[in-house]
Amino acid sequence: MDAPRAAPVERFLRGLQKRILAALQGEEAPGAGILRRDPWAAQDSGGLTCVLADGEVFERAAVNFSRVQGERLPQPATERRPELAGCRFEAVGLSVIIHPRNPYVPTSHANLRFFVARDSSGGPQAWWFGGGMDLTPVYPFEEDVRHWHRVCLEACAPFGEDLYRRLKEWCDRYFYLPHRREARGVGGLFFDDLDWWGFARCFEFVRGVGDRFLPAYLPIVQRRKSAPYGARERNFLLYRRGRYVEFNLLYDRGTRFGLQTGGRVESILASLPPEVRWHYDWQPAPGTAEARLGEFLQPRDWV
Amino acid sequence: MDAPRAAPVERFLRGLQKRILAALQGEEAPGAGILRRDPWAAQDSGGLTCVLADGEVFERAAVNFSRVQGERLPQPATERRPELAGCRFEAVGLSVIIHPRNPYVPTSHANLRFFVARDSSGGPQAWWFGGGMDLTPVYPFEEDVRHWHRVCLEACAPFGEDLYRRLKEWCDRYFYLPHRREARGVGGLFFDDLDWWGFARCFEFVRGVGDRFLPAYLPIVQRRKSAPYGARERNFLLYRRGRYVEFNLLYDRGTRFGLQTGGRVESILASLPPEVRWHYDWQPAPGTAEARLGEFLQPRDWV
Repeated sequence: MDAPRAAPVERFLRGLQKRILAALQGEEAPGAGILRRDPWAAQDSGGLTCVLADGEVFERAAVNFSRVQGERLPQPATERRPELAGCRFEAVGLSVIIHPRNPYVPTSHANLRFFVARDSSGGPQAWWFGGGMDLTPVYPFEEDVRHWHRVCLEACAPFGEDLYRRLKEWCDRYFYLPHRREARGVGGLFFDDLDWWGFARCFEFVRGVGDRFLPAYLPIVQRRKSAPYGARERNFLLYRRGRYVEFNLLYDRGTRFGLQTGGRVESILASLPPEVRWHYDWQPAPGTAEARLGEFLQPRDWV
Repeated sequence: MDAPRAAPVERFLRGLQKRILAALQGEEAPGAGILRRDPWAAQDSGGLTCVLADGEVFERAAVNFSRVQGERLPQPATERRPELAGCRFEAVGLSVIIHPRNPYVPTSHANLRFFVARDSSGGPQAWWFGGGMDLTPVYPFEEDVRHWHRVCLEACAPFGEDLYRRLKEWCDRYFYLPHRREARGVGGLFFDDLDWWGFARCFEFVRGVGDRFLPAYLPIVQRRKSAPYGARERNFLLYRRGRYVEFNLLYDRGTRFGLQTGGRVESILASLPPEVRWHYDWQPAPGTAEARLGEFLQPRDWV
């Protein structure tokens, strides 16, 4: 039996949501941070939005599960199969966006989603997984980026020799700000329209990616969360968060899909950073720690 | 002679740019604020970006003139004539975005632009003006909003009995955030594809709007700029600025047009506020000064 089924995917994603939240809370100082758990329902959709706010380690972390149904699949939902736009669909997804307070801890993002599109008789016409995970450092450390990518490689290795390289390049292409001619971060994995190996094997791959988010990210958090920093580093963090906002509102398909399908706005925009600055025409001076970030935003082989 | 000509429009807009900058500097405390004047040129385009930053009254004010030429008019440039997409074009425009520091002084925005689209032989195929001005208060005062709209009415009155109402409603429709089901501010005037009365008369109308930006805005600045405020009001200002960012990056045609035509990114994004906050799922408590803003964001008759 290899029929696509949303129920086991939902169980996995809800379990992963719990594990990620528990791990993030475990990194916080005792008593720091407020966790809000907001179940929500609207028409045929619903979810559980969890936001850890005002922590000492995490200024905001959103770990959101949602289940969406709709009469007409909007265009941003599938990149390469525009012919499915307009189909009835259901989707489950988990979205993780972590904005740490310490400028030495990178921002991180993961998303896993499963779609079923149905034809007019209600039969499944297509199904696919999408998602990935990517890292956005402000003051990058080479060992952190290498560790992140090694874990990404590990998730891909059992599924084909070339898979990591393909999904890594896809990630570099997707998380790119054309108007800035700049990558959003140092990448990781990105995939969409994944149905290549049958449902069971695709789901196995997606579980492998999800299970590796914490092993990829937590060691970096632990290494950097107590690093001392000052107003200069804080200011650069807030400035770089502007790029994150630009990407999410100008380009991100998940954000645009969510807002178009009437998803819960506060859940979708929980991805935005709590505090941001824009400076007019500011550039880091050559040779500074801030200028060094530019080198990391050139795609390269990290493993 | 009623041939459309960009040169006199450019002269008017450059003069208006100077007048607005001088007036804004006149509101600042002596020595406060830094004015940057950045002429720029790129391929067939260029402009003069002027940003007044870190003032006591104006946290950031961008007053930008630009002149753009292109081989293919992008889709966002004309709302109602998609058949012109792909034409060669030239455009001149002035864009004003003012983010005051005091939460009692409203944010304001004005834009005036003139387009000529040419067919393949280089002859003018269409020309039109677009623009308007709108006000975005954080702690609104009814007398300020009434004053603003009365000046808008004055600009329209000589051009038709119904014109103010039409452009005011157009403004309400345009500056609207569908995902928030909320107006961006209290509106003003908005128009596009304006070629209804021949070039000379249309240009006269546009000059009238431009000439009235300062009389509409400055009295409000003068009335409110010294009002005392504290951390609570500052925090609400930063929170409301998030809506401004959402509108500009998700919906604003000028922003998307500029980024698509390879305009100068720092000039286009000088419209973004210097400092912004997003709070997850925050609502003002009923009966507070912050909740009162909601009443002003319902379109109504202000004159």
